[in-house]
Amino acid sequence: AISSTDNEHQHLRYNPLRDTWVLVSAHRMKRPWAGQVEKPPEEHTPRYDPRNPLCPGNTRANGEVNSDYDSTFLFENDFPALQPDAPDPGSDQHPLFQSKVARGVCKVMCFHPWSDVTLSLMKKQEVVKVIDKWAELIEELGTTYLWVQIFENKGAMMGCSNPHPHCQVWASNFLPNEPALSDRCQRAYYQKHGEPLLLQYAKQEAEKKERVVVETSDWLAVVPYWATWPYQTLLLPRRHVLRINDLTTEEREGLADIMKQLLTKYDNLFEISFPYSMGWHGAPTGPHLNKDNSHWQLHAHYYPPLLRSATVKKFMVGYEMLAQDQRDLTPEQVNNVTYTCANPALYKGLC
Amino acid sequence: AISSTDNEHQHLRYNPLRDTWVLVSAHRMKRPWAGQVEKPPEEHTPRYDPRNPLCPGNTRANGEVNSDYDSTFLFENDFPALQPDAPDPGSDQHPLFQSKVARGVCKVMCFHPWSDVTLSLMKKQEVVKVIDKWAELIEELGTTYLWVQIFENKGAMMGCSNPHPHCQVWASNFLPNEPALSDRCQRAYYQKHGEPLLLQYAKQEAEKKERVVVETSDWLAVVPYWATWPYQTLLLPRRHVLRINDLTTEEREGLADIMKQLLTKYDNLFEISFPYSMGWHGAPTGPHLNKDNSHWQLHAHYYPPLLRSATVKKFMVGYEMLAQDQRDLTPEQVNNVTYTCANPALYKGLC
Ligand SMILES: O=P(O)(O)O[C@H]1O[C@H](CO)[C@@H](O)[C@H](O)[C@H]1O
Ligand SMILES: O=P(O)(O)O[C@H]1O[C@H](CO)[C@@H](O)[C@H](O)[C@H]1O
Repeated sequence: AISSTDNEHQHLRYNPLRDTWVLVSAHRMKRPWAGQVEKPPEEHTPRYDPRNPLCPGNTRANGEVNSDYDSTFLFENDFPALQPDAPDPGSDQHPLFQSKVARGVCKVMCFHPWSDVTLSLMKKQEVVKVIDKWAELIEELGTTYLWVQIFENKGAMMGCSNPHPHCQVWASNFLPNEPALSDRCQRAYYQKHGEPLLLQYAKQEAEKKERVVVETSDWLAVVPYWATWPYQTLLLPRRHVLRINDLTTEEREGLADIMKQLLTKYDNLFEISFPYSMGWHGAPTGPHLNKDNSHWQLHAHYYPPLLRSATVKKFMVGYEMLAQDQRDLTPEQVNNVTYTCANPALYKGLC
Repeated sequence: AISSTDNEHQHLRYNPLRDTWVLVSAHRMKRPWAGQVEKPPEEHTPRYDPRNPLCPGNTRANGEVNSDYDSTFLFENDFPALQPDAPDPGSDQHPLFQSKVARGVCKVMCFHPWSDVTLSLMKKQEVVKVIDKWAELIEELGTTYLWVQIFENKGAMMGCSNPHPHCQVWASNFLPNEPALSDRCQRAYYQKHGEPLLLQYAKQEAEKKERVVVETSDWLAVVPYWATWPYQTLLLPRRHVLRINDLTTEEREGLADIMKQLLTKYDNLFEISFPYSMGWHGAPTGPHLNKDNSHWQLHAHYYPPLLRSATVKKFMVGYEMLAQDQRDLTPEQVNNVTYTCANPALYKGLC
């Protein structure tokens, strides 16, 4: 058991979803920062911008015209990293030069017709519509594709090149590295302990209450014990759920609630529209639909880049790239100190 | 075999050092970029700055005074992520809350007394002194510690908070995730093929000549077949060498040469002092010194963040964090198109 009063020394923690370790240096926030300072997120995005290809009624790069949508809006990525018809590269005979065919589709989904809102600012029923669309996409693309990755890059700091609220969906005929690893870890845990890893984990965290950020009757958002990014969170249902399309109507309403609460807390933390990358992991689809996936539990990962303030991020560089992830404060410090919502007024938030 | 003329479609490539795949989307550089633009690297760093804690004779945060060094200069990191005396956290009985003791040391090594030089601009004999010091550190810290990670974060874009040319050395009583994975992969390959993975790889690349950036009689720098960062390179000796302290005098001179050539090419690429994180991987040390490490081959990884220009980087975000690394052009495109050193004048470079 980690003594939560030892904030002077480092230790390692195990990430059971990735079978890796993170170096937790509880004392490293003390070092002064003279490095790069980021531009804070844009504060005044116009609600409608005639040049923004994501706004209703506007024309995109390929000449297509967006509908005059008033809820969510889905279209094919105009510059897809995955296309359905890529040729098979064949394979070199040498084991060090292995290639494989990759086929898929990339879609973009606008959350709302307005550019100046985010999920935290949208009405609950508007967020439910986003969730319903996610569920539809997993259902539809999942009939063909083995993996359907829903993700949101939010903020210029996270490589997002358009301020309009949107996410992406990349579906592929292969299981990417991260879900492949997570599948392996969850399967091994299930075989050994007879219960899904993330179900046992959620129960433990709900009891311990040391890292819980928000909880509702159906959902839990925690700073995972093995978090690598300073304000990383894990969002998961309390019930055993394989995929987002398996959520009941009530659970979708509950998800909209907890997402709004979590994202409002994030926004309040440094009093900016909080940047992050997030994404959903659930049981694989396509050929896996008929297999036993009891070891899986639906969850979302939130990976926010900031460390010290709205303009100073955590750099995952030299040691992290070459050796191992390292964090500068404990997940418990994060939870105690910073999720207290100092400025609930800013976003007229819920916390 | 990948057809190098197919620049319209994606495929997967296998990274045998990490047992992972990368999605290579040969056509994605065509998409326009409206996202974040970085500050270009500082152009006029003063040779000596009385407030820079890394300059000769200056006082550091902890009150210590640097010597009036005229070559390399080594000191303990004033805010170390690893300390030699951290207590054992003990371990929770639960498999989802595992922690372990982490002990180690963190050192900083200045390459040169002047703040306005980089390895590419230093004299060859000055670079040899850096290599000799790296070898000494592996030798000395390696008697105690299982892993000694030498790495350089160069440029503010890579989280480097001081423009003075320097690297870091973090030594630990544990094998971090990345070298642990690399150890496993190299071992399995050796057992199956009877020769070290990276020796076979270097021979293949030297023959194919499709991805070689610089080669000398003793060394090879290639854009690996499985590169994830756009301008990533792998630097390795042609002879079987376990650790940097095993290099002969001639090989150290040769390493200084190829490093200067490689880094000059990088600098010329976008006509800036090129940012990157780099680090050395060699056979583990400490308790591993007496074990069989024949499967290991010494090598350095260079991970530069830039994609399109001096100010537009590749964002490894949503899909990359949640699913799998993805690149926007092939390693062969990088090599053919951009390592041709359009502007050799700028840094009075070697290429
Ligand atoms: O030690 P530095 O240079 O202050 O810090 C930099 O390198 C470290 C090791 O890669 C990272 O953990 C930090 O996030 C980064 O800012
Ligand atoms: O597709 P976008 O938003 O233009 O691009 C962004 O997300 C992609 C998926 O995570 C990344 O590969 C790109 O590097 C990033 O800039």
